[in-house]
Amino acid sequence: MPTDTKDRFTPTKRTRLKRLPKRASYKRGIIYQILDEAFVCHVGFIDSDQPVVIPTAYGRSGNMLYLHGSAASRLLRALANRTPICVTVTLLDGLVLARSAFHHSMNYRSVVVFGTASVVKDPRQKLNALRVISEHIFPGRWADVRGPSKIELQQTLVLRLPLAEASAKVRNGPPIDEETDYSLPVWAGEVPLSLVARQPIADSRLRPGMQTPAYIQSARVRSLA
Amino acid sequence: MPTDTKDRFTPTKRTRLKRLPKRASYKRGIIYQILDEAFVCHVGFIDSDQPVVIPTAYGRSGNMLYLHGSAASRLLRALANRTPICVTVTLLDGLVLARSAFHHSMNYRSVVVFGTASVVKDPRQKLNALRVISEHIFPGRWADVRGPSKIELQQTLVLRLPLAEASAKVRNGPPIDEETDYSLPVWAGEVPLSLVARQPIADSRLRPGMQTPAYIQSARVRSLA
Repeated sequence: MPTDTKDRFTPTKRTRLKRLPKRASYKRGIIYQILDEAFVCHVGFIDSDQPVVIPTAYGRSGNMLYLHGSAASRLLRALANRTPICVTVTLLDGLVLARSAFHHSMNYRSVVVFGTASVVKDPRQKLNALRVISEHIFPGRWADVRGPSKIELQQTLVLRLPLAEASAKVRNGPPIDEETDYSLPVWAGEVPLSLVARQPIADSRLRPGMQTPAYIQSARVRSLA
Repeated sequence: MPTDTKDRFTPTKRTRLKRLPKRASYKRGIIYQILDEAFVCHVGFIDSDQPVVIPTAYGRSGNMLYLHGSAASRLLRALANRTPICVTVTLLDGLVLARSAFHHSMNYRSVVVFGTASVVKDPRQKLNALRVISEHIFPGRWADVRGPSKIELQQTLVLRLPLAEASAKVRNGPPIDEETDYSLPVWAGEVPLSLVARQPIADSRLRPGMQTPAYIQSARVRSLA
């Protein structure tokens, strides 16, 4: 088994891909890139023997993933309890159309993280984690808005999840058909998908003369890559 | 507690939203619409006391959700074992930019389904379920491709999950700021997000003269709505 290095996570029993292992990656660079591109993760946890999967925002700084939510949230309080969780992030890059139904597929990049979360209590670290989440979703926004008040900070629960046990799974490229199917008169190929930001909608109570900031206009480009 | 009707799921202890209940919906119409629009669901299950969340394709027909995968897949075999699962589908509709960091949000539509899956064994029902999944992802495709062979059907595991315990959560519209923040010189509003299909990429081994079918061209429109 390869050792956990700066560049690579060590595959564990839980993160090692059994099927289609060629789609697996344990490289930090690839895993971080996927985590940084998506907006939403799906958090899985166990609540009275029942698996529960909830979508939520997040942010990453170095080897740390941050989640946040209302201190009154059942989800957040459950996660804070050092219970095992699974955080999965999926980017859907395209639909793959083969000549047979069987070989249809999707192009995607996904990351699965296992671990236990803990509460970020230190006020400075907490504020920093909120900045990380904000800048993850909207780079440039944090400096432009009113920061959290003391009461708002108290109403917010922030969790950290160390990235220690993580893997990526990536499929890309054209369909792979049975050799005998390539002669079939069926169109085959890829339909690439992109999450794109459309024209911003200004709030109806915007102050007169307020311009759309450059970092909001440029956000429209980010996901078109 | 309202009764389970044709139009509405009965909220249960697990599906009733405690926080922000005004974002909750138990209407079949809304839940079906969200399920029909997304391409990928996130399936949560428990594997040796560890929650695991995996993205996968799916399809819906009436009150039944279908999942499929390789008969060799650990995921599928785990799910087939009538273990409790959670299927979550999330559509991200936009980023919501408030005047304070605290009130930033996202516009989204999500569905959470709880239940247990079982294997679709009957060959006709199995073939039909595969057609449902295919038509869900790419309407019109099924009629155009080589259907599954007997061996391919054997290599495929199909699961059904009855939609009995389900809820939707929806946020839309502008940011809601603190009254005193509306006078701040901060741009606020929404940045709508759409998953769009880009120009199809024909497979390099496409037969000469093969045209892109109309249902593939029109797929480009679907998610732009």
